[in-house]
Amino acid sequence: MRPNTIICISREYGSGGHEIAEKLSEDLGIKLFDKELIARVAKMADVSEEYISQREETGDYAYIFGVPIGHPATTPMDECILTPEKLFVIQSIAIRQIAEQEKSCIFVGRCADVILQKLPGCHSFFIHSSEAVRIQRIMDTEDVSEREAKRLMKKVDKERASYHNYYTKIKWGHPSNYELVINTGRTGIDKAVKVIESYLEE
Amino acid sequence: MRPNTIICISREYGSGGHEIAEKLSEDLGIKLFDKELIARVAKMADVSEEYISQREETGDYAYIFGVPIGHPATTPMDECILTPEKLFVIQSIAIRQIAEQEKSCIFVGRCADVILQKLPGCHSFFIHSSEAVRIQRIMDTEDVSEREAKRLMKKVDKERASYHNYYTKIKWGHPSNYELVINTGRTGIDKAVKVIESYLEE
Repeated sequence: MRPNTIICISREYGSGGHEIAEKLSEDLGIKLFDKELIARVAKMADVSEEYISQREETGDYAYIFGVPIGHPATTPMDECILTPEKLFVIQSIAIRQIAEQEKSCIFVGRCADVILQKLPGCHSFFIHSSEAVRIQRIMDTEDVSEREAKRLMKKVDKERASYHNYYTKIKWGHPSNYELVINTGRTGIDKAVKVIESYLEE
Repeated sequence: MRPNTIICISREYGSGGHEIAEKLSEDLGIKLFDKELIARVAKMADVSEEYISQREETGDYAYIFGVPIGHPATTPMDECILTPEKLFVIQSIAIRQIAEQEKSCIFVGRCADVILQKLPGCHSFFIHSSEAVRIQRIMDTEDVSEREAKRLMKKVDKERASYHNYYTKIKWGHPSNYELVINTGRTGIDKAVKVIESYLEE
């Protein structure tokens, strides 16, 4: 593996993408930026970490603090409103800063695949699985009913797609945006990790 | 690699899928069934090889010999009409026969991914590339203009998708049907071959 390797994992909800990122981090000794990214963004935006983690990567970009984007009654106070667009810009800056400082790093979601796509050594993978496999996984990991797992899967995927497509104008999950699309329903999690590790070997 | 390994390559036109299959065949010493499959099907259907190669894997399943499927004026002679459905059934039988006899083999397209999916040791990969990359490749390999390459790409992809979706009821190119979707526009052909070879290693 090259010394400067940036791994961007995009993933459907319940596909095991986050677990794959964690295992890659452990195996390759490369830091996964998740909670630390949230902390950094929260500091930059001067809000709580909880506030960021609740709002990032959601489809909720049309309204925030009850103020619609493009609201006609703008006042000087509007400068202080952290719109989802501002939050996206701040998060993008944080992601770029980390990639430049750390050289090697791993990101999950958050449009990092597009934000960092032009950096040398940046690789993007999409983790997919069939709905049936994902529903079962969500039931197991979240301890919810089949009905609730299905609802969650549809909701979260819609949010992720909507967020990605809105900010990048690039279709979330389309194979053109990634080097490999891995179907964990067929490969399993460990084999998916191995596929990425083999791929990154010179 | 396991002794019994069946590789099914599905591919967008111009993605380099056939070249990948040829390289896998050479590297792994596993036979690629292409012209030999056509010859076998032609013999089974008692028609010429040219007839088969012109008609297989096309979207042209509604009419053949000018006779629409389900034509009301059936006669005993209709038994002799090689409808596209009959051709598909004969080809499927040939593919299964080869897979059972040869143990290890490689197929490109022809719904082999679905026909053989339940066989142990069967692996399916989809080769994708962005339209821009594929158009350039078609221009180079077929020696045609950009306009003609674009027309060919759309026509052939439509035929392949239509053929696959009609006979298998499974959506061509959807990542749920494959273990890996490989974007040769980003990986290149040789790296795509390596990804599959690493994947097949135990």
